[in-house]
Amino acid sequence: MNTTEHSPIVCRPIGRIHSRFTAAEGMPIQTTGAPAEPGSIEVYPEFEPGLRDIEGFDYLIVLTHLHAVQREMLEVVPFLDNQPHGVFATRAPARPNRIGLSIVRLVRREGGVLHFEGNDMLDGTPIIDIKPYVPRFDVRETTRIGWFEAKVDRVGQVLSDARMSPAADGPNTPRG
Amino acid sequence: MNTTEHSPIVCRPIGRIHSRFTAAEGMPIQTTGAPAEPGSIEVYPEFEPGLRDIEGFDYLIVLTHLHAVQREMLEVVPFLDNQPHGVFATRAPARPNRIGLSIVRLVRREGGVLHFEGNDMLDGTPIIDIKPYVPRFDVRETTRIGWFEAKVDRVGQVLSDARMSPAADGPNTPRG
Repeated sequence: MNTTEHSPIVCRPIGRIHSRFTAAEGMPIQTTGAPAEPGSIEVYPEFEPGLRDIEGFDYLIVLTHLHAVQREMLEVVPFLDNQPHGVFATRAPARPNRIGLSIVRLVRREGGVLHFEGNDMLDGTPIIDIKPYVPRFDVRETTRIGWFEAKVDRVGQVLSDARMSPAADGPNTPRG
Repeated sequence: MNTTEHSPIVCRPIGRIHSRFTAAEGMPIQTTGAPAEPGSIEVYPEFEPGLRDIEGFDYLIVLTHLHAVQREMLEVVPFLDNQPHGVFATRAPARPNRIGLSIVRLVRREGGVLHFEGNDMLDGTPIIDIKPYVPRFDVRETTRIGWFEAKVDRVGQVLSDARMSPAADGPNTPRG
């Protein structure tokens, strides 16, 4: 087992989110739960050359650090359910490394600022990567979606709550 | 500007990839370019409880650290093209933070090992997150795919080459 595989990985934020959401509770739990909700990405000046030609894409995959989430759990009761699941079988934010994935619709670019719709992110969320969404790479059709099967249609109604916060009860396994 | 937004983010690998690919050149450039290519995810024992119920899903989103890529560029000539683009308008591996996204088909689970098909990853690649693929969250239909429009159908033919390696020439901007 070599050191590379277990060594910590250090990421530098390339930008941050601007959003009307300033508290982790009461937010949309997926971008498809709030497809018209606006937000913007501020890409820091030193990374702005990386945006060249991004205007040609409808959708972007935004990878973030869910900095406001304070727990990293291995089993979690997700917002859409009342039963615990392994965190890697959920999209819960309170996960090891707290990496978020939000697919947003790019509305327009203004220099280093990308205005988008479909926002489930907190104001100030650090961004670690932006990738263009390409259906040929990113679309998979399947009905095998585990415990989501009976729950997924609630995504537009359910908002986040306090269960990912430090004081939450439940059959969770804090990691560290 | 507070420190959280610019502070480095430290991730711990939750596991690693086992793959027949041991060099970064000559590999598939997307999982849809090699849908039958097998691989496996070894989840480290301390994270194995996080896999509970993952068997119910057909597809997983695997976020990785592209540890073998040595450059982080802002403009890059991607494998599918001969023109430079901003790296955030490409899926090139030589990007800030070198985070990879691979959507794989889960074939079976054996304890902490997830056997999958659709493999574009190098042996030993550290994994920082696994999320279940849920079409209601992750599918977007669009034909606005920028420079990919004329190139995307080559994904099954084109393999990676040396252009992301330290000695590569071209209009690239090494980041530092």
